[in-house]
Amino acid sequence: MILTLKQTATKKDIDIVCKKIKELGFTPHLSKGKEVTVVGAIGQNAILKKDIFGAMDVVAFIMPISKPYKLVSREFKKENTVIKVDDMEIGGSDVIIAAGPCSVETKELLLEIAKKIKISGAKMIRGGAFKPRTSPYAFQGLGEKGLKYLAEVKKMTGLPVITEAMNVNQVSLVARYSDIVQIGARNMQNFDLLKEAGKTKKPVLLKRGFSATIEEFLMSAEYIMAQGNYNVILCERGIRTFETATRFTLDLSAVPVIKKLSHLPVFVDPSHGVGVREYIPVMCRASVAAGADGLIVEVHLCPEQALSDGPQSLLPLQFDKMMDELKAVARAVGREI
Amino acid sequence: MILTLKQTATKKDIDIVCKKIKELGFTPHLSKGKEVTVVGAIGQNAILKKDIFGAMDVVAFIMPISKPYKLVSREFKKENTVIKVDDMEIGGSDVIIAAGPCSVETKELLLEIAKKIKISGAKMIRGGAFKPRTSPYAFQGLGEKGLKYLAEVKKMTGLPVITEAMNVNQVSLVARYSDIVQIGARNMQNFDLLKEAGKTKKPVLLKRGFSATIEEFLMSAEYIMAQGNYNVILCERGIRTFETATRFTLDLSAVPVIKKLSHLPVFVDPSHGVGVREYIPVMCRASVAAGADGLIVEVHLCPEQALSDGPQSLLPLQFDKMMDELKAVARAVGREI
Amino acid sequence: MILTLKQTATKKDIDIVCKKIKELGFTPHLSKGKEVTVVGAIGQNAILKKDIFGAMDVVAFIMPISKPYKLVSREFKKENTVIKVDDMEIGGSDVIIAAGPCSVETKELLLEIAKKIKISGAKMIRGGAFKPRTSPYAFQGLGEKGLKYLAEVKKMTGLPVITEAMNVNQVSLVARYSDIVQIGARNMQNFDLLKEAGKTKKPVLLKRGFSATIEEFLMSAEYIMAQGNYNVILCERGIRTFETATRFTLDLSAVPVIKKLSHLPVFVDPSHGVGVREYIPVMCRASVAAGADGLIVEVHLCPEQALSDGPQSLLPLQFDKMMDELKAVARAVGREI
Amino acid sequence: MILTLKQTATKKDIDIVCKKIKELGFTPHLSKGKEVTVVGAIGQNAILKKDIFGAMDVVAFIMPISKPYKLVSREFKKENTVIKVDDMEIGGSDVIIAAGPCSVETKELLLEIAKKIKISGAKMIRGGAFKPRTSPYAFQGLGEKGLKYLAEVKKMTGLPVITEAMNVNQVSLVARYSDIVQIGARNMQNFDLLKEAGKTKKPVLLKRGFSATIEEFLMSAEYIMAQGNYNVILCERGIRTFETATRFTLDLSAVPVIKKLSHLPVFVDPSHGVGVREYIPVMCRASVAAGADGLIVEVHLCPEQALSDGPQSLLPLQFDKMMDELKAVARAVGREI
Repeated sequence: MILTLKQTATKKDIDIVCKKIKELGFTPHLSKGKEVTVVGAIGQNAILKKDIFGAMDVVAFIMPISKPYKLVSREFKKENTVIKVDDMEIGGSDVIIAAGPCSVETKELLLEIAKKIKISGAKMIRGGAFKPRTSPYAFQGLGEKGLKYLAEVKKMTGLPVITEAMNVNQVSLVARYSDIVQIGARNMQNFDLLKEAGKTKKPVLLKRGFSATIEEFLMSAEYIMAQGNYNVILCERGIRTFETATRFTLDLSAVPVIKKLSHLPVFVDPSHGVGVREYIPVMCRASVAAGADGLIVEVHLCPEQALSDGPQSLLPLQFDKMMDELKAVARAVGREI
Repeated sequence: MILTLKQTATKKDIDIVCKKIKELGFTPHLSKGKEVTVVGAIGQNAILKKDIFGAMDVVAFIMPISKPYKLVSREFKKENTVIKVDDMEIGGSDVIIAAGPCSVETKELLLEIAKKIKISGAKMIRGGAFKPRTSPYAFQGLGEKGLKYLAEVKKMTGLPVITEAMNVNQVSLVARYSDIVQIGARNMQNFDLLKEAGKTKKPVLLKRGFSATIEEFLMSAEYIMAQGNYNVILCERGIRTFETATRFTLDLSAVPVIKKLSHLPVFVDPSHGVGVREYIPVMCRASVAAGADGLIVEVHLCPEQALSDGPQSLLPLQFDKMMDELKAVARAVGREI
Repeated sequence: MILTLKQTATKKDIDIVCKKIKELGFTPHLSKGKEVTVVGAIGQNAILKKDIFGAMDVVAFIMPISKPYKLVSREFKKENTVIKVDDMEIGGSDVIIAAGPCSVETKELLLEIAKKIKISGAKMIRGGAFKPRTSPYAFQGLGEKGLKYLAEVKKMTGLPVITEAMNVNQVSLVARYSDIVQIGARNMQNFDLLKEAGKTKKPVLLKRGFSATIEEFLMSAEYIMAQGNYNVILCERGIRTFETATRFTLDLSAVPVIKKLSHLPVFVDPSHGVGVREYIPVMCRASVAAGADGLIVEVHLCPEQALSDGPQSLLPLQFDKMMDELKAVARAVGREI
Repeated sequence: MILTLKQTATKKDIDIVCKKIKELGFTPHLSKGKEVTVVGAIGQNAILKKDIFGAMDVVAFIMPISKPYKLVSREFKKENTVIKVDDMEIGGSDVIIAAGPCSVETKELLLEIAKKIKISGAKMIRGGAFKPRTSPYAFQGLGEKGLKYLAEVKKMTGLPVITEAMNVNQVSLVARYSDIVQIGARNMQNFDLLKEAGKTKKPVLLKRGFSATIEEFLMSAEYIMAQGNYNVILCERGIRTFETATRFTLDLSAVPVIKKLSHLPVFVDPSHGVGVREYIPVMCRASVAAGADGLIVEVHLCPEQALSDGPQSLLPLQFDKMMDELKAVARAVGREI
């Protein structure tokens, strides 16, 4: 961490700053120029103490020289993390498509969707059993019954399951039925939930909060990894901006940015990001071209009957057509679906 | 809810829409013009079903005609909600100032701050025992020990306590020691936590998520009230924008907007909203002028020693000076501190 | 335009609203329900009068039923607009790549870049002669001399030229030397400049303001077309959000959204949108996959010598490698480069 | 400007950086630590060359140590700038209220509004003769005729006039009739217009672009001052965020932030910032409490007849009531209206 002091800094001020750096266990590194005085605080995680220096009136600017995260960083692990779920490799050369309804509704419906998406080339089934809904009066999900349906449909189709846990007490329950535990965007900074997810043995897919910076997103992944679970998938799902033509603004630059900063696999969820059915196939193509390791796509047999998120669900036929296009784009960027 | 159909809508399309409205238990109200066909869906909470109609290709626009929240609305309750905590009335003619350190650190420090802010006119002590921190390696709070210190300092000073619960299992614990249970901005859409907060008997202060719309904010309050806890305080604490001169952008318009839409008391937290010490007193004045029922302000004896949020803490002397200014502004808008 | 009246609306209120609709030359269309009264105002451009009704206390909501733009809309013209510049077709099956330095610096440098990008497959040369710079003390462009260099380099290489006009008095000057007149993002709502651009015979490339909604963007194109110039190219170049890892957030969803709403060709400028050299090739690929009709890319022989925008310029070798990848992606989505 | 080099920087890399710093006329200041190498580039306006270093792969971070603006800064001029217009002092102890219709419509209407607002205590009349409208089909203002009406109403009431110039050719025309030349938010980075405004002798009120950072806002003021016009008033008028309950989000923190960074007077325009009539008086109070030197408020005799911006205009009676409240708030913060 580098501290630039105000031009008015006296020798006494500088001494106080240096003394505080030492007190905290770091090495001060003073560079006094004619016009500006710079003090480096050298040592691991010095940046975590930045508030202490930010509170000093004499400090004008603080610049980190190291990232605040460690385990998620490329510096910590050069090669891409590849996560194995059954025979499937996430983060390898294949682009993994997960599809399914927003909410699990009935077993029959789920099974029928699963069969169809599998034929089209999807590798995973998604569906919510616990649903974070803006309104307390809206359908809140089937709960454990939904989890059971997912597990049964997996038995029948072989498709691994991804589904969400919403609170600390649900993580182990979800992990029992699901292959991947999802943490939703609204819980990206629910730190106790992240810690709990870090204690499970199952891979975790962490969605980016819709107003989280990429750095905050990586810090939340660090919470999970710090508990010993290194199988984390990061998922961009749209950020909140002033634009209202789409539900959120899908930040596809996040894909190359995260892949530069981190070794973890990156998914994209265009269904939530865009929120309008007809734009989803195009944005799925763009996501694959942007380097995504996987996609999560909502598919429903009859979107206007869906208990949630109908407007952004594809019909199986639309999904099937899109998959053909995605395969071509994947090949063009040297990957397979 | 009013549905505007596309110009291409056929008689059959219209019939399907009307049939679906009836199926869901609402009354369709058809208004067919030369250029546009409008169908009203009349009935309680019709808007909750908007996704079903949004998924229909024939529907061009959907307009709510009622709010998606009920218990929090001014329509439900005309007069302002006044919440009593000991002798203090929140939402009445007094503007309530809560102050204290970001985190509870030691009992001695907490007590000294409490005594000083009380002399300056603060009516409540704040301080975090469970701390939501971006980094897993940062100080996470003293936990129950911190709660005990808060309760002891209350005994010694008479100042009611407000402190945060971060997960579903902490709510009853926090409620045991604290007068008001705070739900933090990052948990504003942690719906299970909201439900749990709705089951406690203690008043709840709900902070606005930093990218939540006012409508989403009110929906989260509705979650708490729907469980039977009607003592909810809403707290604006800054939203995330592109501006970096301040930590967040304090959205003071939210105060009159919420007071128009809801009967609940509204607080403002300029310390987190602005995040820079020297701008906080001015923004506290502006908050009172904007009609806030209370403020939460961070005060620390020695900000550069604070274990968190040093740069935005006021010194007791700064706080004392500010309180004099606030009293004048409060009187100018017909209130008291 | 559909007006929903407040529940408290009296018969007299309704009469006043209907009378005003007639006064303005529209037909009122009343639909009085038990719980809600809706009044349609039917007629061309009724939405332009929405402020008049918005100012009435009895009006609760206003919903447009037609778009505020006309000439730019798909309804006005079903088939895609294809703009011919020399032999090149913009908006046809080819994806057009324009490349070149941020600013025109010397003729030699410009020529050398032009030759290199042409070999790699670029179809147009870009370069600023008039430069909108945040600081009055920064390099402001070569002015007319820069325009002359561009025209000379066109003669030598055959590459059509695109360059920016910054004020009403520069439009005809720029049009004399350039094949396409660019209106920059900061001038997207410089309405007098738009009108002037509408009077030239040359095609206009209009960049999206970095906080403009897509609707506002289309309205600005409407300004140009309303003056009789129908050859408008729209260019997404990143919007301003809270994320700081990239210079702006490239809103690739804007491509399919605009192509749905309008018949005009859509370009993307990933160099300005992302602003970090190493992410640009990936985002160019994603832009093509998202359906862009063209790209604008900054290329410089020696980015650290560039007088502006060095950090986001590609080297010719990087550009060449990228073009190969782009050709594959273009083919995968049924287009050619 | 301080450059932090990547850990991989070799001696040769460092030499190249230092050489380039010298070439540009600055002094390099090397500080080589065990873990990090920092190079200062010392000299005036070094920060303007940051792109050159940003384009070098070896540079990891760049930190400015001086502001990119000079004439607008507090460092350049310690005491507040006070601008005299007739007998009125802007930036002094009085808070100046400018009021009037959005657009000038008829002389009679303008005069009647002027008389009423003067009685209530307004010190200036505002009204647009040239109107920046999103739609080319909307009322574009009366042009020079509107300017004449403004000047005549000034003669009759004594109220100084503020009105907008939209392009480079209008500045001298507007300056002939108006006491203060306004540059609108959409033109904040219309740099040629800023230069032109810098050449007039009249004071300029510069509105903040709705997605401009405070630093960019100050840089635009620097453009005006760099031409020799030191009488610049800065006006906060709301920034664009995701919130839709108000038209924009009024960023009141901008007031103390700007007053800290600059000596120039700061106005607030709550009418455009909030855009909803009933919230405007409250936000005017908050603006005064936040330290604004003046307000611009839209007042119209009959908002539903207004040719533009009806929903955000106050009636004279509402304005009069508000002025009483504002006077009390002004006194509470040590000022007068």
